[in-house]
Amino acid sequence: MSEFPKTERNQVRRVAKRGKYDRKTIYKILDAGYLCHVGFAVDQQPFVIPTLYARIEDSIIVHGSSISRMLKNLEKGVRVCVTVTLVDGIVLARSAFHHSMNYRSVCVFGTGRLVEDQGEKIDALKAVSDNLLENRWEDSRPPNQKELNVTSVIKIDIEEASAKIREGDPIDDASDYELPIWAGVLPIITEFGEPQADSKLSSDIDLPEYLER
Amino acid sequence: MSEFPKTERNQVRRVAKRGKYDRKTIYKILDAGYLCHVGFAVDQQPFVIPTLYARIEDSIIVHGSSISRMLKNLEKGVRVCVTVTLVDGIVLARSAFHHSMNYRSVCVFGTGRLVEDQGEKIDALKAVSDNLLENRWEDSRPPNQKELNVTSVIKIDIEEASAKIREGDPIDDASDYELPIWAGVLPIITEFGEPQADSKLSSDIDLPEYLER
Repeated sequence: MSEFPKTERNQVRRVAKRGKYDRKTIYKILDAGYLCHVGFAVDQQPFVIPTLYARIEDSIIVHGSSISRMLKNLEKGVRVCVTVTLVDGIVLARSAFHHSMNYRSVCVFGTGRLVEDQGEKIDALKAVSDNLLENRWEDSRPPNQKELNVTSVIKIDIEEASAKIREGDPIDDASDYELPIWAGVLPIITEFGEPQADSKLSSDIDLPEYLER
Repeated sequence: MSEFPKTERNQVRRVAKRGKYDRKTIYKILDAGYLCHVGFAVDQQPFVIPTLYARIEDSIIVHGSSISRMLKNLEKGVRVCVTVTLVDGIVLARSAFHHSMNYRSVCVFGTGRLVEDQGEKIDALKAVSDNLLENRWEDSRPPNQKELNVTSVIKIDIEEASAKIREGDPIDDASDYELPIWAGVLPIITEFGEPQADSKLSSDIDLPEYLER
């Protein structure tokens, strides 16, 4: 587990101490998320598209319909920035100025390539599914050839990346600690709710074990 | 409340029926979120940065340290794509192929300008604070001149926008409904946890009412 190089592109400049460049920290965040925002530019016009992803070793997998703008651009090998943001809480300082968020985020820089090998493609699709919900891939009807043909899978090799993390209490100016203002962290929690059966689900099909939690 | 024009840039092409262009739908999603991902490109290199925001009428407000790369680029008036994504659940279809997410997302296209008027700047900062947590602005020590000087506020006029929404049950191929596979929606719920007091908080300061819920 080594460090990604710190370059003009990936360097965290604002509150530099929050910047991390080691694979361990970066991959832990990437592996904790499931939704990324993919940025690419077409003639200086940026687009930012939310999509599911998975990490496989030193690359990020995204997929979608072969005719989507994002996939069509990514398979051309345009430069990509993939950002994953996990929000942990609102940091309530005594001063408006020192309000902040507790979060873990990663920016990945690289370029994509279309995954053409059929086996590699299926492995990549399974990785995205597993990253969202373990065990579901095995419990679904696998993709057939027609479905695979209209799906593009893109592998983005991680050329550079950086993580930015903020955690813990607010940091106020020394003189503000005397103010009669409540300060602390309001946690933001994301969790699964109760599974809701499809209205067309046959009544003899039980909820699978991996959804019982 | 009218429609944004449907152009090459903002048109939802994949599953076009999920695309919405009316201000009412788009603003409802923007007003329900607090975190956006701002995309901009520098010499074809895209950057995607997570940040807080607020909507004021037909514009999006973002702010940050004047020396941040994002703010410095945005104040130059580069083209921007601001994306807000609210995830509501995982759509578990019988086929791997028809798995999806329930979500509400908006892409806004425009260019930013630096807010220089002091009154407008404070109103904009308050709007971002209110959008994150109502009542907190009034309960904080307001920004002083030194703090305002090192903060940049950018107003991005919404030139074009589109929303994309998916909701409800999975849609499977007709022949797949007979498969003995559980299908439905696994909701994803985001909520506030129990407020955690700053370790340096004086014990005589009570939790304010707006945090008691």
